[in-house]
Amino acid sequence: MEAYEAIVTRRSIRKYTSEPVSDDVVKQLMDAAMAAPSAGNEQPWQFVVIRDRAVLDALPTVHPNFRHAQAAPMAVLVCGDLEKEAHQAFWVQDCTAATQNVLLAAHALGLGAVWMGIYPREERLPGLRKLLGLPEHVVPLALLAVGHPAESKPRAERYDASRVHYDRW
Amino acid sequence: MEAYEAIVTRRSIRKYTSEPVSDDVVKQLMDAAMAAPSAGNEQPWQFVVIRDRAVLDALPTVHPNFRHAQAAPMAVLVCGDLEKEAHQAFWVQDCTAATQNVLLAAHALGLGAVWMGIYPREERLPGLRKLLGLPEHVVPLALLAVGHPAESKPRAERYDASRVHYDRW
Repeated sequence: MEAYEAIVTRRSIRKYTSEPVSDDVVKQLMDAAMAAPSAGNEQPWQFVVIRDRAVLDALPTVHPNFRHAQAAPMAVLVCGDLEKEAHQAFWVQDCTAATQNVLLAAHALGLGAVWMGIYPREERLPGLRKLLGLPEHVVPLALLAVGHPAESKPRAERYDASRVHYDRW
Repeated sequence: MEAYEAIVTRRSIRKYTSEPVSDDVVKQLMDAAMAAPSAGNEQPWQFVVIRDRAVLDALPTVHPNFRHAQAAPMAVLVCGDLEKEAHQAFWVQDCTAATQNVLLAAHALGLGAVWMGIYPREERLPGLRKLLGLPEHVVPLALLAVGHPAESKPRAERYDASRVHYDRW
């Protein structure tokens, strides 16, 4: 897939075939995640790749939106590691750039994915922490469902000229 | 450029030729920005595209890091519009996904770009607000310098297997 095309055609995909996501593809997705820029190159991220069916089946109990993507053969929990944050308060942006890279890489590799928000909704943190055994200094930011797509969506036309200002507001 | 390759080879580029960035390319970059996912599709973003040399020359006075990218023929200020935020506190992540799309689209189109952080560093907000005339409900998140690259960098090898956990921490 051509790079610019991939960026503008990525959509949220919530239906998947039963085909598993291979170890090679997992490695590629994680490599793409860690290719993201970060403040002062601090790279304050950690990832939990979930393919165990029992854990996947438990995810809707700790993140309600996961029930809409329940057939996913894989989830990725993107987390911020506060012990690795050198530039205070930029971990959210760093880990979000990594998240967007995973979504785009999935699309580029023929997969489909969808992003479910966690942080800063405090009520979504304890359940995920407990289910996945996260230490205190690791904050779950985003939960992604990933799989081979069983739906396709046309490009969303979101361009809005009124959002672009030239030289000053 | 192939899509996956673009994601893993993007680097921060701070040296540019004097070639201007055309209106067509600006439109493509903004289209890519607005193709980003957002919480409940709220799209809480606004962008200021700066190509006026007098404004570009003033940017280092309000964002010290811009002096390292001073030859850039263009900057993009990515902002959150708090009046458009429907899902409280997700505007930072939405606008960061848009930021990453601009950086990747620039690379995909043969340009180079670099991201300079603003929010939540409170001391960086008033100068940018005043210089660009931003209204109170618009919060500057990230300043990007963009141009035709006058430097090339090899792929950064950032993959770290210790950051990937399987099924649980």
